[in-house]
Amino acid sequence: MAELEYIRWIREQTRQHPRVLLPAGDDCAAVKWPNHQPLLITTDMLLEGSCFLREAGPQRIGRKAMSVNLSDIAAMAAKPIAAVVSLGLPHDLPQSWAEAFFLSLQAQAALFDTAIVGGDTNAWSGPITISVTLFGEPTGKGPVTRSGAKPGDALLVTGGLGGSILGHHLDFTPRVKEAQLLHQTVELHAMIDISDGLAADLHHLCQESGCGAEVWAEAIPISESAQRRNDINSPLHHALSDGEDFELLLAVNEADAQRLIKTQPLKALGVNLSHIGRFTKEGEVVLKEPDKSQPLPALGYTHQFGQ
Amino acid sequence: MAELEYIRWIREQTRQHPRVLLPAGDDCAAVKWPNHQPLLITTDMLLEGSCFLREAGPQRIGRKAMSVNLSDIAAMAAKPIAAVVSLGLPHDLPQSWAEAFFLSLQAQAALFDTAIVGGDTNAWSGPITISVTLFGEPTGKGPVTRSGAKPGDALLVTGGLGGSILGHHLDFTPRVKEAQLLHQTVELHAMIDISDGLAADLHHLCQESGCGAEVWAEAIPISESAQRRNDINSPLHHALSDGEDFELLLAVNEADAQRLIKTQPLKALGVNLSHIGRFTKEGEVVLKEPDKSQPLPALGYTHQFGQ
Repeated sequence: MAELEYIRWIREQTRQHPRVLLPAGDDCAAVKWPNHQPLLITTDMLLEGSCFLREAGPQRIGRKAMSVNLSDIAAMAAKPIAAVVSLGLPHDLPQSWAEAFFLSLQAQAALFDTAIVGGDTNAWSGPITISVTLFGEPTGKGPVTRSGAKPGDALLVTGGLGGSILGHHLDFTPRVKEAQLLHQTVELHAMIDISDGLAADLHHLCQESGCGAEVWAEAIPISESAQRRNDINSPLHHALSDGEDFELLLAVNEADAQRLIKTQPLKALGVNLSHIGRFTKEGEVVLKEPDKSQPLPALGYTHQFGQ
Repeated sequence: MAELEYIRWIREQTRQHPRVLLPAGDDCAAVKWPNHQPLLITTDMLLEGSCFLREAGPQRIGRKAMSVNLSDIAAMAAKPIAAVVSLGLPHDLPQSWAEAFFLSLQAQAALFDTAIVGGDTNAWSGPITISVTLFGEPTGKGPVTRSGAKPGDALLVTGGLGGSILGHHLDFTPRVKEAQLLHQTVELHAMIDISDGLAADLHHLCQESGCGAEVWAEAIPISESAQRRNDINSPLHHALSDGEDFELLLAVNEADAQRLIKTQPLKALGVNLSHIGRFTKEGEVVLKEPDKSQPLPALGYTHQFGQ
C-alpha cells in the first residue's frame, strides 16, 4: 500500500455531482442542502475479522460497506445524498486490492445517486478498517422512525429471511427504492431494516414504539438460503435470528396492509411483501405456531448504538 | 470491554441539543438544518500505534479525536453542529478506559456546542480505532476555502509553531472561535489548519490557489516546545515541518493584514497573529532568511485525502 499514491488515485476517481459544492481536497467538503429538510445521518464501521473476512474479496467488501449504510437510510424511507469513507489499510495490502475496493464502493454509491465527498485514508499495521458515514434527506412525508407502530397495526416484511451468511450479507440490495415506493403508497407508521435478525429487530421496533407484537410462524418468508443451511437449527430459527437480511420490517394499518399484500407494489422491483403478524397492546413479543404460542426472545445479535 | 453494556452507557450520556430532532437510537439521527446553508463535512480516523499511543491516556485521546475534526471546521471559519463517533475497541480494553475516552470526547464537543448524535461501537481483536465525522455550517460570509489566495496577499498565522509532539498535538485548542472572529473582522481569502506542518500546508494553499509564496524565516513564531526540542534540527526547522500545530494559516489583503497585526483581535482569546510572508505570482514557495533565499519544499507529512 503506497498511501500517498492511493490517495492521489482516489481523488482522481471523484465524480461530479450536482449537490456537491466543494469535493474532497479542502478542509471540509460542502454539500448543498435543501430548505426545510433535516439532515439524516448514519454511520457503520466494518472491521476485518469481526465484520468481514478478507477472503470475501475487495469488490464484495466495498459493496457491503456502502450497502449497510444505504440500508439504514432506506429504513427511514429517505434518500441518500453523500458519504465520506475513512480507511485503515494494512501496509502489506496490495494497492490493486484497495483500488478494487474503492471502485466497488463507489459504484454501489452511484447506483443510488450518492456522491463520495471525502474521507481519511491511513496505512497502518492493523487489520482492514472501514468507516462510512452517509448523509440523506427525508422523502415526501418525512423520515419514518422506529417509534410509530400502534397496537392493531399490521407487521409486514420485504423479501425472504435467514441464511444470509451464505452470501446475501455481502451482495444484498439495500431497499432504498422499495422504501420510497412504500412511503408514497401508504402511511408507514414505523420501519427498521433487519440487521440483527427478525426477532431482535422486532424487539427494537416494539421497544421504541411502546407496544408488543405477535408473529405468525407460518407466514414468515423463509429464504432459500435458510432452507439450505443444514445444521441443528430449523430454517424458521435461521429466518428469525440469522440477521444481516437487510430487508425492511414495517408497521402499517390493517387496511393498508390488505391493500399492499393484494397489489404487491414492489413486484416490479422483484420484491415480495409478506404480512407476518400484528402489533399488540401487551409489551410482549410472541411467536404463534399452529399448535402453540410462545414468547419470542430477541434472538441473534443485538448490539447497536443508534446508527 | 462489555460491548453491549458500553453501548447502553454511551446512550445514557446523550445530551439534549436544540438542533437534534432524533438522537442516537433509530436507524439514522436527524439534525435540523437551516435554510440556504450548505452542509460542511469533515472526517478523521485515528488509529492506535499510528496516530496515537495508548499511553497518552483516554482523556487526551478522546479530546484529540474531536479536536482534529473541529480544527478542520475552524479552517473554513465554520460552526460545528453535530458529530458521529465510531469505535473499534480491543476485547481486553477496560470499560473504564472506554468511558473516560467518551466523556472527554463529548466534553470537548460540548465546549463547541456540538452534539454527539450517533455512531457504531464494536469490540474486536485489533488495536483501538476511532472514526469521527463532524458536520458544520458556514458562518457569515460563507465557507473559507484553500483556493482563494491571490498574489500580493499577506500570509498570516495564529499562535506558535513546532514541537507539537511534546504535548500540544493532544491538548491543543481548535481555533474555531478565532476563525469566526477573523471572518467577522476582515475578508479571509483562503485558510487552512496546520496539520502536516507550515511548509507542507503552505504548499497546499499555494497549489489550490494557483500561486506561490515567500515566507520570512525571522517572522515565523517558533513555539517554546520547538525551542526545547534538543536534536539535530533547528527550532526553525521544527516550526516549518513538525506539523500537528493545528494553528490557522491564512491569506488576507495587505491592508487587512496591517490592521490585524496592529489590533491583534485574537488577544482576548490569548492568541497572537503573525505576519510571516506573502503570496506571489510565481508557482514557487520560497523561504527568505536574512542572508539567503531558497526553495521551501513541502517538508513533513503530506498525506490527506480531502477531509
